Amino acid sequence: MANNNSSSKDTYVLVHGAWHTGETLEPTARIIREQGHDVHCPTLAGNRPGDDYAKLSLQDAIDDLVAYLEKNDLKDVRLMGHSYGGMLISGAAERVPERIRRLVYVNAFVPNPGECLADMTPPNFRELFDAMNKANNGAVVLPYPIWREAFINDADGELAQKAYDVLHPQPYRCFVDPLPLKAPLAALEIGKSYVNCVEDTAMPHSLPWHPRLSERLGLFRYVACAGSHESLFTQPEALAKAIIAAGRD
Amino acid sequence: MANNNSSSKDTYVLVHGAWHTGETLEPTARIIREQGHDVHCPTLAGNRPGDDYAKLSLQDAIDDLVAYLEKNDLKDVRLMGHSYGGMLISGAAERVPERIRRLVYVNAFVPNPGECLADMTPPNFRELFDAMNKANNGAVVLPYPIWREAFINDADGELAQKAYDVLHPQPYRCFVDPLPLKAPLAALEIGKSYVNCVEDTAMPHSLPWHPRLSERLGLFRYVACAGSHESLFTQPEALAKAIIAAGRD
Amino acid sequence: MANNNSSSKDTYVLVHGAWHTGETLEPTARIIREQGHDVHCPTLAGNRPGDDYAKLSLQDAIDDLVAYLEKNDLKDVRLMGHSYGGMLISGAAERVPERIRRLVYVNAFVPNPGECLADMTPPNFRELFDAMNKANNGAVVLPYPIWREAFINDADGELAQKAYDVLHPQPYRCFVDPLPLKAPLAALEIGKSYVNCVEDTAMPHSLPWHPRLSERLGLFRYVACAGSHESLFTQPEALAKAIIAAGRD
Repeated sequence: MANNNSSSKDTYVLVHGAWHTGETLEPTARIIREQGHDVHCPTLAGNRPGDDYAKLSLQDAIDDLVAYLEKNDLKDVRLMGHSYGGMLISGAAERVPERIRRLVYVNAFVPNPGECLADMTPPNFRELFDAMNKANNGAVVLPYPIWREAFINDADGELAQKAYDVLHPQPYRCFVDPLPLKAPLAALEIGKSYVNCVEDTAMPHSLPWHPRLSERLGLFRYVACAGSHESLFTQPEALAKAIIAAGRD
Repeated sequence: MANNNSSSKDTYVLVHGAWHTGETLEPTARIIREQGHDVHCPTLAGNRPGDDYAKLSLQDAIDDLVAYLEKNDLKDVRLMGHSYGGMLISGAAERVPERIRRLVYVNAFVPNPGECLADMTPPNFRELFDAMNKANNGAVVLPYPIWREAFINDADGELAQKAYDVLHPQPYRCFVDPLPLKAPLAALEIGKSYVNCVEDTAMPHSLPWHPRLSERLGLFRYVACAGSHESLFTQPEALAKAIIAAGRD
Repeated sequence: MANNNSSSKDTYVLVHGAWHTGETLEPTARIIREQGHDVHCPTLAGNRPGDDYAKLSLQDAIDDLVAYLEKNDLKDVRLMGHSYGGMLISGAAERVPERIRRLVYVNAFVPNPGECLADMTPPNFRELFDAMNKANNGAVVLPYPIWREAFINDADGELAQKAYDVLHPQPYRCFVDPLPLKAPLAALEIGKSYVNCVEDTAMPHSLPWHPRLSERLGLFRYVACAGSHESLFTQPEALAKAIIAAGRD
């Protein structure tokens, strides 16, 4: 195992959630970099301007993440996934485990083998995804009232709107394609952490991110963080600190 | 819709809980006013010195709240209800929805149509209410040990006693009269927020305020706050900040 | 009842958890002492260097705690138990209730009459205890990966290792001996508090310390605290403040 020292220079790859781009994680990344670490925030297939929403799949995004790690020859990576990004880091972990030091889920989906993201959401989410898919030829858009009340509840109205304006439509297939893992993530011999932003109600608290999804990781490190599902916009300092606490050693 | 701007001057009406008066919300109100807002803290029927505990009803208190909003011609109101106050703002919202911009529940009861407050409490609360009603001709008093341990657990002993000394008996009917709503609150086309003081154990955490009662609101904005059920006494700054986060835009 | 005044000089006895010694509670004790209080941190039978792990029992540790209170003639004691220490203060409370002002459980076990500690843990804990008992002649050792991820998740790697190095093996019988209480703790006429360190995942959050175990106390005072199960190492200031909030009046 490589450097165990908390003052070492570590490599972080931060994987955005649905509707987001790598750019939205830059305020968080900057703070982690100030602690001396290397931080990458790629925007993956499906979340780029001009992407073909009707065709792009969950697997395309995972392929893209694996290619990014390989192309940059990244090793000992603290691989963070936010929300939908949990699907992507889970898929990549089975493909290139030798490059990954620790998986860090931030209010993220933790799929059982063969599950899709929608399987882990309340029924009304699935219905919303399906309706949008039909209406928008494969593109799912988050309605502003849901964004404002359930995703970025800790922002003021101005920040809520400003952040909403940088979101992209998300390919429907990213939500409904199953992830064919060979084994449950708990069996994967890589360290795992779960960061839980305690005001996050993107998943209702009766069907919560943690411990419902986090416990699928088996032995994992729990880190609590202030803020909503969109702490990357509302409190990047707290989020950066939590990611470092989750990723160190 | 009116002003969406977080620096605007908004109107807040803060509705006290059982045993409390409007005066107990003044420390919180003062802090909200310092942010440039208009804040009202009426003491409603049933909680005034000299009230006839045997006769006054839940409906009397709701009528009083509606009359207050109308008499002062308040519009675009952020209507906050603490604890039992959740019954009152729920009833008023159906009566004068055109005056209300957003309902803000602070560790408050959210009734289904036809429910009374006692329906949402543990069985031993109902038994306590019933026994007191018989013993005190309609007046329910909160015993000091319950107040000190379960309501104001974050105070020191001196503040716990001082705050207890300003409480009033509460008419029994406020706890057992059903609220005949025409429709579930989730169907009401008014913004809704739920502030959850995370050390509040007035409802046991196995039968919690949130998400058990908050989720009855449908889509709502969640705001966490430090402190106990009596954060209005123990940390009015945190509570004021949470109410503003809940009430803005 | 004695001094109710929060500026009074109170007597605290802090009882360590499994694998720990009284010495590990000294950083917390020092902060409580700075507030003017008297604080004792005994190391009890089973947790001393050279103890006979195969023979020492839960009852030996309780006897030791009772003897400590009697020998020092301590009165009006705020008796705090951390984790396994909850078994010990529960047992002592029935033996010398006249010496105890309040029981303070800190992420601690609260046994029903006749239960052992292992009865309150997930099945895989019991299996781990049993396997170690056989392999190590009665001594149970906490594996480092579980310590680091689930017990001291809020430490950096260096502190996690340093704290691990001062732990002792624990006699197996402390985990599997039933505690023969005469009555449920809720019936005991002594004040009770439960401090919950909210990042504690030594018990999984799906089978949590609070409210699962705390509610066995009947009416109790809840105090939330930052940090993991090992806040005594990672944030003694927060823990000391929480213990005082739990123990005062």
